[in-house]
Amino acid sequence: VKRTAVLVSSIGLFVAGAVPRTARAESSDAVRAAIVAALARFADALKRGDAAGAASIFASDATFVAPGNFIVGREAIMASYATRFQSRKYLDGSLTTVNVAVSGDMAQELGTSVFTIQLTGQAPSTVTGHYLSTWRKQRDGSWLIQADAPIADPAPAK
Amino acid sequence: VKRTAVLVSSIGLFVAGAVPRTARAESSDAVRAAIVAALARFADALKRGDAAGAASIFASDATFVAPGNFIVGREAIMASYATRFQSRKYLDGSLTTVNVAVSGDMAQELGTSVFTIQLTGQAPSTVTGHYLSTWRKQRDGSWLIQADAPIADPAPAK
Repeated sequence: VKRTAVLVSSIGLFVAGAVPRTARAESSDAVRAAIVAALARFADALKRGDAAGAASIFASDATFVAPGNFIVGREAIMASYATRFQSRKYLDGSLTTVNVAVSGDMAQELGTSVFTIQLTGQAPSTVTGHYLSTWRKQRDGSWLIQADAPIADPAPAK
Repeated sequence: VKRTAVLVSSIGLFVAGAVPRTARAESSDAVRAAIVAALARFADALKRGDAAGAASIFASDATFVAPGNFIVGREAIMASYATRFQSRKYLDGSLTTVNVAVSGDMAQELGTSVFTIQLTGQAPSTVTGHYLSTWRKQRDGSWLIQADAPIADPAPAK
């Protein structure tokens, strides 16, 4: 009887549209691969000084957590990168995904970053950081950043 | 015929254990209320200088993103708070949840913080921040922080 009740409940969930959501579930490895590929495109965009390219891995309603404010929306994030590129070049660098956890259409990613940055008129310096990002699966199956909180490491002692 | 096929698929998911997971889904409002309540307990623990209490809203395998490293596990996070409490008191303050998004057993939260902190031997100062946290539903139905990335606002000009 219990099994029948659960089956009926499962039919109810199908009617409510919940089962197709479950049926879309991806393996954690597949999500991780999509994230790693997106971050490689992101790092390439930084090195080109391409604000639109950098912002393209963010969802249209994504939030970037900055020191002092939330930057909300891909357009605002793109403008923020454009401003950054006016005063600095990303000479080299990459992001390294340390951990990915997936639940349905949402993924949590922990990672580290290392970039060689040159502020206009200054010598290049290496900047490292640790970050937490969340990603959301889009209707076309791609994964984009929903929220990003990058925390710069303390500057090394001189 | 299509409907029957999906129904059979749904039974398959039930057998695989996926439907019970979906059946546990909570409303975003309920998750938000659980998070807000946990953060109130957290702020109270900070004001008591209670490291175990502060760490109790973190999952056993949670990650705290700090400037320079990941602090992994509730025990390590508790030790980090204990160290902080040796040199500072949290006189007052709170966290404000700005946005919560839920997918299955995972939730993403964006929020802000404001605390009046007194470093030993110094005058109290107000410290504000913006943060991204992820939360995970536990087996007992409670929600605990899975990853936390708090970003301090720039210090106000003096």
